[in-house]
Amino acid sequence: MSAVSLLRDISDVGRDHWRGGYSRHVFDPAETQLREWFAEQAGRRGLDVEADRNGNLWAWWGTPGPGAVVTGSHLDSVPGGGAFDGPLGVASALDAVKRLQDNGFRPRCPVAVVVFMEEEGGRFGVPCLGSRLLTGSLDVDTARALRDPDGVTLAEAARRAGVDPERFGRDEVALSRVGRFIELHVEQGRGLIDLSSPVAVGSTVIEHGRWRFTFTGQGNHAGATLLADRRDPMVPAASLIGAARRFAAETEGARATVGRLVPRPGGTNVIASTVDAWLDARVPGADNTRPMVERIIEVARLAAAVEGCELTVTEESHAGAVTFDPGLRERLGAVLGPVPELATGAGHDAAILAEHGVPSGMLYVRNPTGVSHAPEEFAEDADVERGAEALAEVLRDLST
Amino acid sequence: MSAVSLLRDISDVGRDHWRGGYSRHVFDPAETQLREWFAEQAGRRGLDVEADRNGNLWAWWGTPGPGAVVTGSHLDSVPGGGAFDGPLGVASALDAVKRLQDNGFRPRCPVAVVVFMEEEGGRFGVPCLGSRLLTGSLDVDTARALRDPDGVTLAEAARRAGVDPERFGRDEVALSRVGRFIELHVEQGRGLIDLSSPVAVGSTVIEHGRWRFTFTGQGNHAGATLLADRRDPMVPAASLIGAARRFAAETEGARATVGRLVPRPGGTNVIASTVDAWLDARVPGADNTRPMVERIIEVARLAAAVEGCELTVTEESHAGAVTFDPGLRERLGAVLGPVPELATGAGHDAAILAEHGVPSGMLYVRNPTGVSHAPEEFAEDADVERGAEALAEVLRDLST
Repeated sequence: MSAVSLLRDISDVGRDHWRGGYSRHVFDPAETQLREWFAEQAGRRGLDVEADRNGNLWAWWGTPGPGAVVTGSHLDSVPGGGAFDGPLGVASALDAVKRLQDNGFRPRCPVAVVVFMEEEGGRFGVPCLGSRLLTGSLDVDTARALRDPDGVTLAEAARRAGVDPERFGRDEVALSRVGRFIELHVEQGRGLIDLSSPVAVGSTVIEHGRWRFTFTGQGNHAGATLLADRRDPMVPAASLIGAARRFAAETEGARATVGRLVPRPGGTNVIASTVDAWLDARVPGADNTRPMVERIIEVARLAAAVEGCELTVTEESHAGAVTFDPGLRERLGAVLGPVPELATGAGHDAAILAEHGVPSGMLYVRNPTGVSHAPEEFAEDADVERGAEALAEVLRDLST
Repeated sequence: MSAVSLLRDISDVGRDHWRGGYSRHVFDPAETQLREWFAEQAGRRGLDVEADRNGNLWAWWGTPGPGAVVTGSHLDSVPGGGAFDGPLGVASALDAVKRLQDNGFRPRCPVAVVVFMEEEGGRFGVPCLGSRLLTGSLDVDTARALRDPDGVTLAEAARRAGVDPERFGRDEVALSRVGRFIELHVEQGRGLIDLSSPVAVGSTVIEHGRWRFTFTGQGNHAGATLLADRRDPMVPAASLIGAARRFAAETEGARATVGRLVPRPGGTNVIASTVDAWLDARVPGADNTRPMVERIIEVARLAAAVEGCELTVTEESHAGAVTFDPGLRERLGAVLGPVPELATGAGHDAAILAEHGVPSGMLYVRNPTGVSHAPEEFAEDADVERGAEALAEVLRDLST
């Protein structure tokens, strides 16, 4: 099956009727179904599927071992996400392997297709969870204790899915096999529309992180409580949203977003007792994100104090700026002919591996809407075909 | 059983471990259990329980008929509410009837204890749903189509609970029986702390209403989308929160609250596509609330336009200012001796009945925390006793 057909095959899995699009979170029924689907599709191509210690799936063409050329992406989505972010990379990898097999190509090194778990952090809050655990860049106890919105820990969810959380942690065996990693991904902005190209090679990923702000006030009656008697955490939370926008606007190329905000208890006639709000911040350059976030925190702290509220801020994740391996980029460019290079503001497992010394690269496929993490995310069939073909060319080159 | 014992009896029903306190919403398992408990307790006192056409429960001491003295309140709560708001009035009513029965008192008119459904609007958004339907002050088709956060309509929820929504609407039979209505309720502010009194008689309820603001932008990727390309509905929602606080502060005695806000899809790395926010607004005097809300809407509309978002605003409920029947207040004062009168910013079923011509009055019981709609809401046992005793005295006086 081609990448287009593979995507069509899973187009009903994990639809979210309230949000639109798809909600597929690690170890939930939809993501579990996709994992099974992946194993079946890999089996049809004669690949051997194994799970590593961190819940990532590897489908091997040839005997697993060092120097492997690895490609793949993830199957989970953001809440209400599009059909392409993640699955396009997995489907294209399966398609590329099939193309090479159909042409009688015999790789001179192992080739693997990987599915990383919880790339979006949509359930447990930390993005690139699978690749962070694999590379040892996330503390294992911290990871096990992460909770989803229902209070279920990652350890519990993993155990229920048959993954032993006691085995979580840097996986030398799995890592030592990865010679080079290529991730194909749908473009998440207007980059390839503007460049009029179906495919691009990734150049950099900007620094990014997530901060959780918990404002605590006093829950009370919305009618009986005079303004002077209030400690309403929604008021400083509004200041956080304003400050995030303002400081990002003042900082060249910066992005700051509050897309998730949960007042508790959340009643119309109830002054909230706490508000949790999550700040996603990303600033180009090296180590510019935390200084901007510090300024935002300062405003939020002041606003909380003015309202008589407490504020605690937790950095839930952070990833430094990444420049993909120059030699590998050059090689991709040589194989694919004249394709543009593209910087991205989105994080990827490839960037986590690159940070940990694995030569990694990315291929982007044009998204004609320029919208991602939303149902409008799209890729034309012809561009999907071109992406899978390009990935096959790259795999052939790297494994020859 | 005394009111104190009755409240203890239900202290485990509907606890909300995530929010703290209680979540008991109409027709959910907790509220259903409380309804059954009420019917059983009423039966023990020899009262005949019947449901009216709108899901309200009536427990009759004597033959149902015109000129009845009715007391009661509600058993539902806000999300994460306290133990007293609602159940105190029901428990005190049962206690008061028992006190009169134990003293051998024989009322000269029917006496009834009523439980109104969905007083808080915690599930379907419209407060005083039961008394509004009873009095015909809520359009029946509108009511049937109200949806809870899971999308279940009131009609569906009622049907599942054995209440026929086709029979919803102004209930002349039930209404014609109510000669006078007295609601006992926990105080929801600091009024009785300041007055050093365990009990007060209600004087007025201020005008109040609820408005739903739906901001619609473009869901997108929090990292890949430049600020200039954003239409982020969270940004004008923050302006709404700020404007609500500012205009309420400028308006003598006004309250404006955003305690419920739902961004969709609600992902950390996702710019929201829509934000629903609910404004609860209350202004003393006659018809001052909507003008203040109009000014808030104006700011929200401007902020939405600046961000390239759409805004729709829906008035979900409104109740005018109510002054309780002066003759009845005077009589309550005469029966109870020197007790203070208290105005409230909280809405009550008694105010809905009063608006529709039923002579109605309220008794408040001191709340030593001054906090309501939150787990800290409280009443001392001695004050609960005094409240039940006062209610018994009032019922005796009115039914002699």
